Amino acid sequence: MRVLGVDPGLTRCGLGAVEGRPGAPLRMVAVGVVRTPSDDDIGARLVAVEAGIERWLDEIRPDAVAVERVFAQHNVRTVMGTAQAAAVAIVCAARRGLPVALHTPSEVKAAVTGNGNADKKQVGAMVTRVLRLDAMPRPADAADALALAVCHVWRGGVQQRLAQALAASGSRAPSGRTVARRPDGGGSAR
Amino acid sequence: MRVLGVDPGLTRCGLGAVEGRPGAPLRMVAVGVVRTPSDDDIGARLVAVEAGIERWLDEIRPDAVAVERVFAQHNVRTVMGTAQAAAVAIVCAARRGLPVALHTPSEVKAAVTGNGNADKKQVGAMVTRVLRLDAMPRPADAADALALAVCHVWRGGVQQRLAQALAASGSRAPSGRTVARRPDGGGSAR
Repeated sequence: MRVLGVDPGLTRCGLGAVEGRPGAPLRMVAVGVVRTPSDDDIGARLVAVEAGIERWLDEIRPDAVAVERVFAQHNVRTVMGTAQAAAVAIVCAARRGLPVALHTPSEVKAAVTGNGNADKKQVGAMVTRVLRLDAMPRPADAADALALAVCHVWRGGVQQRLAQALAASGSRAPSGRTVARRPDGGGSAR
Repeated sequence: MRVLGVDPGLTRCGLGAVEGRPGAPLRMVAVGVVRTPSDDDIGARLVAVEAGIERWLDEIRPDAVAVERVFAQHNVRTVMGTAQAAAVAIVCAARRGLPVALHTPSEVKAAVTGNGNADKKQVGAMVTRVLRLDAMPRPADAADALALAVCHVWRGGVQQRLAQALAASGSRAPSGRTVARRPDGGGSAR
């Protein structure tokens, strides 16, 4: 399974792709950042983010896209740009029929480091270790995008094993949707 | 000048187009709403909003698109959907090279009714009167989209006269951008 993680943003939109399956070593496919100039207008910036993500989807051909779920925070202006960049990533993936998953920052941190309150350095260090990289990916947005993709693969595995266990015991899974198709639901680690 | 106003939303995205110029009667070209089912996932909803707006742009062929500027509000989940629908509208317009303007709710209310704190009924009544309609457009999202388009035409006129007056007096306009291309700047009526 190949997953593209997107850490949305207008100034820097982190993109990171990994390949693998739960329980086996993961491999990094690509990592990078799409940047847009802060003095461009919002229309030009969103079009540039869209073009960048489209190029990645063309080249990477992921099976699923994992985008960070955006919450309203203190810095209102920043969070709006983040939400709008996330919308562009979601539309790009959904237009191609790719499953889109939204993971909260806590879910990603918990999945990758075991601690939902881990800091950026801890997340970056674990991503570097899990993907057996020579150095921590920079900037942090790029490492965060890889963490999202790792989280997606691993959480998918957990969800799959849960569904299999429930199927074996004759019960049904608690939700008709898998994690990979659960963009509206709340996360367990929120 | 033909302007498409967009009152962004996932459940109901209001769309309203007007034609005219400042100082002359305005004409309504079209009004309507794009709806998406609340139990669809966010990807499907944003793709449906995009398809709806693309259809409108194909048919209406506006010279500019005016989108309501979204702020973080109390209902976090709703405002995120609104911001994401706005992003889709902005991308659709900017991809075609159309000027995109963001107007705050206060700017729209002030332009249309003379009162930045007007309620929805007052805005709807003024839109009905200004466009000489037989009845108030419904739902409110549709009336709000028309109000955005009216606001855009009228504010454009004010900005143009200001620029002309400054040019005549040998000064430069306070900003290199016109209102119609001012998506990042703050509004005066915030």
